Amino acid sequence: MDEKEIRDLVEDWVRAVHEKNADAVVAHAARDILMFDLAPPLRHRGAAEQKRGLAGWFASFDGPVEYKVRDLDVVAGDDVAFSTSLNWIGGKRTNGERTDVWVRATIGYRKVERRWTVVHEHVSVPFYMDGSYKAAVDLKP
Amino acid sequence: MDEKEIRDLVEDWVRAVHEKNADAVVAHAARDILMFDLAPPLRHRGAAEQKRGLAGWFASFDGPVEYKVRDLDVVAGDDVAFSTSLNWIGGKRTNGERTDVWVRATIGYRKVERRWTVVHEHVSVPFYMDGSYKAAVDLKP
Repeated sequence: MDEKEIRDLVEDWVRAVHEKNADAVVAHAARDILMFDLAPPLRHRGAAEQKRGLAGWFASFDGPVEYKVRDLDVVAGDDVAFSTSLNWIGGKRTNGERTDVWVRATIGYRKVERRWTVVHEHVSVPFYMDGSYKAAVDLKP
Repeated sequence: MDEKEIRDLVEDWVRAVHEKNADAVVAHAARDILMFDLAPPLRHRGAAEQKRGLAGWFASFDGPVEYKVRDLDVVAGDDVAFSTSLNWIGGKRTNGERTDVWVRATIGYRKVERRWTVVHEHVSVPFYMDGSYKAAVDLKP
């Protein structure tokens, strides 16, 4: 049941990102959510900051954000859970570039008043250890 | 009590990394641990793979691995938990370079036979969105 609720949450979240609906994304977040994101800084915190970041990111897409979650694994206890997945982000950017990247996502949840809430998210790509220090944005699962 | 056990595990783990003791690191891992690491691929899996990766990484240091965990936050339920922290890695590499980097770490735990076990780890740095796609290895908390 808990796993089902978290899978529904992720599905809802994917839809919200696809529709560029920052409010619907943030509706799942704890007020003090801790974010380890694709872009610097190392971390940021808070639902207001999440909303601000999403608004800017959504605005950089010319049209919808394509978003796909693969290999979603949910580890759920009574009131603490986390999930892992590989997520694909695609779409046309306002600068003319095309985004097409697979990222790793780890989400941490806490059950607050009988409802699963996102208290942590960690989204990243690895980087090449060949001296280039380039983000590995070309990997496929 | 659960939080204390996990903090002890992290402390033990830090010591094991510092001493380049791959067996002591892997002793905390589930057999099918899922790893999202600093280096490609996107993911790898299994304690044997973790040990192989650690051995190679340890061998790339000339002397001990300096390792520091900061802002460790543990969210623990009855049998599922996760922790977040910013970790600093330092040391002299065999290629003459000096490593000095802050990374974000999210660890997922499961209590198996009354003992907390690491089932997932996600370690990363963000990357610059300025078109360079460079890993942000120069950030400070």
